[in-house]
Amino acid sequence: MRFLVGTVGDVQSVFAVEGDQATNLTFAVPEIGRDLSALTASPELLDRAKGALGKGETVALSDIVPALPIGVPGKFICLGLNYVEHIKEGGYDIPDYPALFMRGHNSLMAAGAPMVRPACSEKLDYEAELCLIIGKGGRHIPEDGALDHVFGYTVFNDGSVRDYQRKTHQWTPGKNFDDTGAVGPIVVTPDEVPEGASGLKIESRVGDEILQSSNTSNMIWGVARTIAIISEYTTLHPGDHIALGTPPGVGHAKKPDPRWLRPGETIEIEIEGIGICASPVIDEDTAATRTVA
Amino acid sequence: MRFLVGTVGDVQSVFAVEGDQATNLTFAVPEIGRDLSALTASPELLDRAKGALGKGETVALSDIVPALPIGVPGKFICLGLNYVEHIKEGGYDIPDYPALFMRGHNSLMAAGAPMVRPACSEKLDYEAELCLIIGKGGRHIPEDGALDHVFGYTVFNDGSVRDYQRKTHQWTPGKNFDDTGAVGPIVVTPDEVPEGASGLKIESRVGDEILQSSNTSNMIWGVARTIAIISEYTTLHPGDHIALGTPPGVGHAKKPDPRWLRPGETIEIEIEGIGICASPVIDEDTAATRTVA
Repeated sequence: MRFLVGTVGDVQSVFAVEGDQATNLTFAVPEIGRDLSALTASPELLDRAKGALGKGETVALSDIVPALPIGVPGKFICLGLNYVEHIKEGGYDIPDYPALFMRGHNSLMAAGAPMVRPACSEKLDYEAELCLIIGKGGRHIPEDGALDHVFGYTVFNDGSVRDYQRKTHQWTPGKNFDDTGAVGPIVVTPDEVPEGASGLKIESRVGDEILQSSNTSNMIWGVARTIAIISEYTTLHPGDHIALGTPPGVGHAKKPDPRWLRPGETIEIEIEGIGICASPVIDEDTAATRTVA
Repeated sequence: MRFLVGTVGDVQSVFAVEGDQATNLTFAVPEIGRDLSALTASPELLDRAKGALGKGETVALSDIVPALPIGVPGKFICLGLNYVEHIKEGGYDIPDYPALFMRGHNSLMAAGAPMVRPACSEKLDYEAELCLIIGKGGRHIPEDGALDHVFGYTVFNDGSVRDYQRKTHQWTPGKNFDDTGAVGPIVVTPDEVPEGASGLKIESRVGDEILQSSNTSNMIWGVARTIAIISEYTTLHPGDHIALGTPPGVGHAKKPDPRWLRPGETIEIEIEGIGICASPVIDEDTAATRTVA
């Protein structure tokens, strides 16, 4: 199945996409709720969603404004260095364990929503990544069998503010600017792609300018191995996201000059068989203090 | 005020602590709910909590089993290197920007709950830390005025599995083992401590063995400056936690041999004027696969 969480009018629903049409699963099976949280946690509900295909109310795919697949993921873990040529372009040694960091939920935005270049930096960079969403959770998940824990795959742009990423050895600030990490819009179940989502073309581009072009088969740590490594230290829960690193071609490594994202551009990430995640880049409107009650 | 979230019988409530007695605020003002989430987001509710002091049902403090102040914090951000002598013992240079990382909610446990030494490592270490909880949220919060955004202060043990922390340059795995980071039990409002919680003795110990002993006035980045730095890149929300780094004396730097935590010991972190966070250390019962629905 191909899921899309999004709004029509002001109402957010979970849709199943077939071609250019989408069935409203939330209307057909209310227990599904308004994002993928419930579906990731319940194989029974997933079966009911399959049963509702073609039976509920359908809308044109183009009428849906994407939202995040899960509004606030319990954990969003990112694997930093997973393609050999990207590791070399960043000046790092080839590691024997993945570099892992975390993103907070307010660094994320839906596909189609603006990607915000902060007032404090011009070094906003893109990173095309495969992202998996956990279905059945667990701890100490062996590599053999780990694919059974994948609910689905989506597209991720691990937007990075490079000068803040390298202010110290810990990358957290540069990976956590508000509204820099785009997720979605389509989440595919594992049966829609090759085993472990391997062998898929992955690309980033602005208009006709191809910035990254690689294949998920070039990942050092594949999906199953990554789940095994991470679940050695933390219990994975339904709805947790794991982003699997980016191929070479990121902006900061472009020669002779870095290729930063600029307001007015739209950065697109495409993964074969999953979809396109497009983000229009805008400038932060103000760096004035805002309070949040 | 001194808050304690905890259970009596099977019922979790928010309590206000006075001496060895505690008033059940959840019973007195049901909108407060069962942890500090609602109180951090509402000054009006905080006023009503103050008004309920001495009026509701009281219980003996010793009858309350502590729970996490907030079960699932929106963000839990940790400052890595904030005391000069600890930076030196770890072999790092003195930075001009804090090293920041994040902990996921399932790495956290309440004060009094077991701290779990994982089956894969014997290098479980303690870190005594001051932890602030955000009240009024915001972005681009200036240092001058940042203290108005603090809901309260608590005690944190930033339990670390050192070999996994240093598997790569990113510390995430070693800082995110399940049930290694103890929070609480008491959360004090800012009026209970000196401005910015500065000038407080901070200590960790096992029985009579004092492992760390310093003062929060030795922090390079104080509370106000830290809030300003972090809110430059991310919107802080009510209930977010920020841990402020640990003083020297951690186990991995002890001479002539490291001093790892061992099952059967109880590690205590104390901050003057706030309280004691005690965690009995146990071994992970099994490294067998567990699934989570």
